[in-house]
Amino acid sequence: MSAKIRLGIVGGGGDSLIGILHRVAASMFDQYEIAGGVFDVDYDRNKSFAEEIGLKPDRIYNDFDTLVKEEKALPENERMQVISILTPNFLHFPMAKKLLENGFHVICEKPMTTTYKEAKILEDTLKKSKAIFAVTYTYTGYPMIRQMKEMVADGVVGNIQKIDVQYYQGWLNPIVHDEEKRANTWRLDPEKAGISCCIGDVGTHAFGMIEYVTGLEVAEILADLNYLYKNNELDIDGTVLLRFSEYVKGVLRSSQIATGEENNFTVSIYGDKAGLKWEQENPNYLYLIQDGEPIRVLKPGNTYLSELSLDGTKMPPGHPEGIFDSMGNIYKGVAKAIKNERYHPSEFPTIKDGIRGLMFIEKAVESHRNGNVWVKITDNQ
Amino acid sequence: MSAKIRLGIVGGGGDSLIGILHRVAASMFDQYEIAGGVFDVDYDRNKSFAEEIGLKPDRIYNDFDTLVKEEKALPENERMQVISILTPNFLHFPMAKKLLENGFHVICEKPMTTTYKEAKILEDTLKKSKAIFAVTYTYTGYPMIRQMKEMVADGVVGNIQKIDVQYYQGWLNPIVHDEEKRANTWRLDPEKAGISCCIGDVGTHAFGMIEYVTGLEVAEILADLNYLYKNNELDIDGTVLLRFSEYVKGVLRSSQIATGEENNFTVSIYGDKAGLKWEQENPNYLYLIQDGEPIRVLKPGNTYLSELSLDGTKMPPGHPEGIFDSMGNIYKGVAKAIKNERYHPSEFPTIKDGIRGLMFIEKAVESHRNGNVWVKITDNQ
Amino acid sequence: MSAKIRLGIVGGGGDSLIGILHRVAASMFDQYEIAGGVFDVDYDRNKSFAEEIGLKPDRIYNDFDTLVKEEKALPENERMQVISILTPNFLHFPMAKKLLENGFHVICEKPMTTTYKEAKILEDTLKKSKAIFAVTYTYTGYPMIRQMKEMVADGVVGNIQKIDVQYYQGWLNPIVHDEEKRANTWRLDPEKAGISCCIGDVGTHAFGMIEYVTGLEVAEILADLNYLYKNNELDIDGTVLLRFSEYVKGVLRSSQIATGEENNFTVSIYGDKAGLKWEQENPNYLYLIQDGEPIRVLKPGNTYLSELSLDGTKMPPGHPEGIFDSMGNIYKGVAKAIKNERYHPSEFPTIKDGIRGLMFIEKAVESHRNGNVWVKITDNQ
Amino acid sequence: MSAKIRLGIVGGGGDSLIGILHRVAASMFDQYEIAGGVFDVDYDRNKSFAEEIGLKPDRIYNDFDTLVKEEKALPENERMQVISILTPNFLHFPMAKKLLENGFHVICEKPMTTTYKEAKILEDTLKKSKAIFAVTYTYTGYPMIRQMKEMVADGVVGNIQKIDVQYYQGWLNPIVHDEEKRANTWRLDPEKAGISCCIGDVGTHAFGMIEYVTGLEVAEILADLNYLYKNNELDIDGTVLLRFSEYVKGVLRSSQIATGEENNFTVSIYGDKAGLKWEQENPNYLYLIQDGEPIRVLKPGNTYLSELSLDGTKMPPGHPEGIFDSMGNIYKGVAKAIKNERYHPSEFPTIKDGIRGLMFIEKAVESHRNGNVWVKITDNQ
Repeated sequence: MSAKIRLGIVGGGGDSLIGILHRVAASMFDQYEIAGGVFDVDYDRNKSFAEEIGLKPDRIYNDFDTLVKEEKALPENERMQVISILTPNFLHFPMAKKLLENGFHVICEKPMTTTYKEAKILEDTLKKSKAIFAVTYTYTGYPMIRQMKEMVADGVVGNIQKIDVQYYQGWLNPIVHDEEKRANTWRLDPEKAGISCCIGDVGTHAFGMIEYVTGLEVAEILADLNYLYKNNELDIDGTVLLRFSEYVKGVLRSSQIATGEENNFTVSIYGDKAGLKWEQENPNYLYLIQDGEPIRVLKPGNTYLSELSLDGTKMPPGHPEGIFDSMGNIYKGVAKAIKNERYHPSEFPTIKDGIRGLMFIEKAVESHRNGNVWVKITDNQ
Repeated sequence: MSAKIRLGIVGGGGDSLIGILHRVAASMFDQYEIAGGVFDVDYDRNKSFAEEIGLKPDRIYNDFDTLVKEEKALPENERMQVISILTPNFLHFPMAKKLLENGFHVICEKPMTTTYKEAKILEDTLKKSKAIFAVTYTYTGYPMIRQMKEMVADGVVGNIQKIDVQYYQGWLNPIVHDEEKRANTWRLDPEKAGISCCIGDVGTHAFGMIEYVTGLEVAEILADLNYLYKNNELDIDGTVLLRFSEYVKGVLRSSQIATGEENNFTVSIYGDKAGLKWEQENPNYLYLIQDGEPIRVLKPGNTYLSELSLDGTKMPPGHPEGIFDSMGNIYKGVAKAIKNERYHPSEFPTIKDGIRGLMFIEKAVESHRNGNVWVKITDNQ
Repeated sequence: MSAKIRLGIVGGGGDSLIGILHRVAASMFDQYEIAGGVFDVDYDRNKSFAEEIGLKPDRIYNDFDTLVKEEKALPENERMQVISILTPNFLHFPMAKKLLENGFHVICEKPMTTTYKEAKILEDTLKKSKAIFAVTYTYTGYPMIRQMKEMVADGVVGNIQKIDVQYYQGWLNPIVHDEEKRANTWRLDPEKAGISCCIGDVGTHAFGMIEYVTGLEVAEILADLNYLYKNNELDIDGTVLLRFSEYVKGVLRSSQIATGEENNFTVSIYGDKAGLKWEQENPNYLYLIQDGEPIRVLKPGNTYLSELSLDGTKMPPGHPEGIFDSMGNIYKGVAKAIKNERYHPSEFPTIKDGIRGLMFIEKAVESHRNGNVWVKITDNQ
Repeated sequence: MSAKIRLGIVGGGGDSLIGILHRVAASMFDQYEIAGGVFDVDYDRNKSFAEEIGLKPDRIYNDFDTLVKEEKALPENERMQVISILTPNFLHFPMAKKLLENGFHVICEKPMTTTYKEAKILEDTLKKSKAIFAVTYTYTGYPMIRQMKEMVADGVVGNIQKIDVQYYQGWLNPIVHDEEKRANTWRLDPEKAGISCCIGDVGTHAFGMIEYVTGLEVAEILADLNYLYKNNELDIDGTVLLRFSEYVKGVLRSSQIATGEENNFTVSIYGDKAGLKWEQENPNYLYLIQDGEPIRVLKPGNTYLSELSLDGTKMPPGHPEGIFDSMGNIYKGVAKAIKNERYHPSEFPTIKDGIRGLMFIEKAVESHRNGNVWVKITDNQ
């Protein structure tokens, strides 16, 4: 009898990048077996994809509701334990809600829901269940991000006084200047993407990362978005001023028209003792900078790192790991939680991170629409 | 008879860093000889410093007014042709004004004056003279900045859609948290430093650089400054949202409490064809990034560079030059202008750059004080 | 019925790094399922490890010979198709030989055998079989190495005139200076590690990489090894002069006492048209350098790359992949071969690469022992 | 009366790069004034160049011998104190010799002489004089090289066990493949360049740097040179195995056909405690690497550096200085020596460094010609 966790997947079929990311991550630590799922709304494509990735057809379901119903009918020791939701954004909320109500653990792609209101409802649902719930802000799984978080918590940077985060991509540049291409891009369609493109897609990663790494909550924001064309309805670039408290400030910069940038996500934290810097495209280097000291460059797998960071590296120093390994670490953390093993609370992002992300998106758009004014990012509203 | 330009220097004696920077720059292309000056308000220190740097005592003057009077009395072919003003900020304006009125060329350290009003008066004075006037925004002299400027002008990046500039230092961190050190730092004293510390000192470099490189003018700004302590009167950190026009936006980030940062000044320009990126601490690398193309890294001295850029490099590729060479290029440009030789209009920053810088400082503080609101950066007010 | 290839594994149990590397790689493209194996010589540890990684006990065998016998007795469509050999080095040869003789495909860790003679015997065995045989020189699976190989083949660098390869590690430094630690390190024990430590372990990676990337064969070598202590029997550092032909030369540098180095493996190829450079610790950057041209930096996943390179990347540009993904690419190539799909001959290293590696090790030691003299690296001896 | 040292220059007129390098270096610390010299063998060009760089004509001499004669006839407090020799290589020896015999201090470009024999004669001449003699191995003047030297001397790396130095350029690539260009390149003409091109030009820099930084002497070398064409008489690439003692080894790699390389000079020193690494094209970064410690990156101007290193930086941290500043540091050291001020013995390279360099060139060629055999690098022969 297999000790592996039985995982179901909804969405992520065909050439889906998010599909392969989750499958590889799930397999990485010998913790999960893919029991089945619904990979596609078209049942034929669903089945043929399942076969292609080597799954038996018996638990490849016709649709999501059937999956829930039939899996729930199975004995507890056969039933899928956790479901990964990789469907289009608007389905995240109803699927997650139903799964939680039926006793399944959930790994949910970001954005967790399409509105803040849904996010709060989901929170209530989760409170009534005993399920584990994770939102896959993939970048938090990097070992040097975990190290950064723990160094901040340990006081290495002292009192934080300035935060700077950047998430620059350029992929929308060739699209936004071409009306036809633009019309065919779901990210730029408010029907499909919600109220925001850039802030919602990459800005929210940046926002979540700051709160993850610092343990602080952003109190207020002032956003300036850019749409480039009058008839382009969703932001494709946005700078957001951040206030954590009266004298702790920061800036979040996001763009999808920073032409030539691939996935240039950087995080810089400055305290009264030191600064810490990290870049996603070179994720295995963490820079500690201090007055009157040489720069220190920390790299994964070394004995001077925290236990949490070391737990996120499989190979000895100098053997680069990447984004798949980062997502693998999140799945590993969820596995520990499901198995009731001891785990560090920072091993995977939780519903709270998902809720904050949704609030950030809505407030950023609000700030911009109201003329670039300060708005509060608080849960009591 | 020497063909060198006769240079006078006011200020910059003793261990002054700006003093050595200007002297080395002046000597770099065999274009100037230091005829004399007033290096210190104390005449004894002035004379002994002049001796120390190998100058004859006969044209080391008791004070600035004497210098102007006596030099003007000399025959034209003996008289100092150009004066470098390296005195404390509040003296820049009266000295520059008097020198221009008396027919001397002027090389003026930044900030050109202490207020925008003074700057405009100086502009009038200059218009009435035939003098050459340069403001030493040193960083514009780097060969790769010149290349960047020309590539933007040549349309390499296409229509600019986003601009990001950063100037982060950390040197005020150990000072601002210590009230005693703070009290002894002239940069933090409004009497000596004017209305701004960070924006005035480094923010203005960043602002000037953007306008230099892009050839665009910032139309409006919204600034958020940080003072860290209630009883600290001058900003030590500031983020400024920039608008060039309705759909061309940017952000300027400056700090002197980015703990551990040395002189981390970066410039990124994104157009609809490509992006260009540069970092001051590694000034000999210019990055051209484009959709679907390998990153291109341009380095000084190579034949693929523009004439203006190549003119700023003395050695073959791979022989790094630095900040002294950058200032040397500015002095070289001024020498060409004084000698009535052909020169490129971008070889040195002019009074217009100085005026824009002053306006920026005043408007940034105004925007912040009025609650982080948009203010126009225009000359008609 | 599953379409996955049935994989058996011998060795690699417990905390074995090579074990996790192969398991993750195997799972990465949904191509393999682990059918069973022999993970440990101790049957209890073997079984408990198998359970730990979620395998059913029925095909966890008592020992290697039993595995071969029982699997061969199974129907062809149930039988393991390919076996990964992850056992100690001296077992590679007998196991690989027996597996080939019994009709199994083989994925063999490096070094393929312990002597050149064994390697040649294995070659004969393979020739008589119809099996697929791969040696896991992991680093050849990186997408930018594949790109480098194809650019060389396409003439981008022109005629090669100089080759420089480095593989520096420092991990033996704290060991070699401590006789007790040294005695407990199998890598330094000739009984277990064979005639060489550094050349055999990392030098051979460097050697294989050069021949892989350039498509050239090294004709002659002259080696200078270092042992640091008289009573240390195996080389821990070695520089090897390389000759490809009269005017094509190179140098291979390897060390395990380059204190502080992690896994600093670099490859530089210079031709009469251009140079290409790559570093393993930053594997997602390939540098193309040419006279009178900006440096070009190529990154994975971009459309300007070759099909072979793109096939080795799962995510869009800017999402770093690493060493696990590299090994995954090798497994993917082997899967194509096993399934009789079209594949590029460079998708995985073959027995020829294994043979060349063994010859290199023996000849390097011979060159050194004979007083650093030139020796030929040819197959006819 | 000027306190400046009176400097004469021979050679370096017109567009000479070495000329501008020495003039800027001399002016950098207000220590020297150029009194006159012989910049060109053609007296008209000599005079017009002198005028161009702003010198009075009275001490611009017809030829070298006249300079020596007439300057010697001047009173001691007017006479040139030191002469910089920037003439073609074959003139270095006779000029330096005559200058020393006539009581002048000498700053001599490398190579100091054209043969080892000449170098030894010059050493005898110097012993009989009281003059200061410096050879301008420019790269030793970088502040981070000085820091590296002092850290090695202070035992930071422990006992050195491995040394790796590289000096790769590509500029001869477009020349060597074109017989016509080759014929017009003095570097490739044995009449003008002596017995070696690559080893003599860049290899000797690498050799001198190792001995400078480590304080060790190379005991034996084995060289493998490359000429690329049968009818190309001088080496354009060479790898040299180094032995310092039985268990301290190294490798020196030099090339002028490493296509696309600009001036890629790197130095790596590994001891039993740590490693130190530096790259000339990014000279303001020194890397300290140790087992179980983060990488430390040291940068110029910081308080944690040695006095000798700090003395070589004029500006605060983060203001990059370059090759001109490096040569300036050498001139500054020579000025201290001439003025009888306290100076550090490592502030400028001496005749010993020049002698070792010559010996290295001759022995490298000898080793290669004799079939790549070991030859001793000792002064007793």
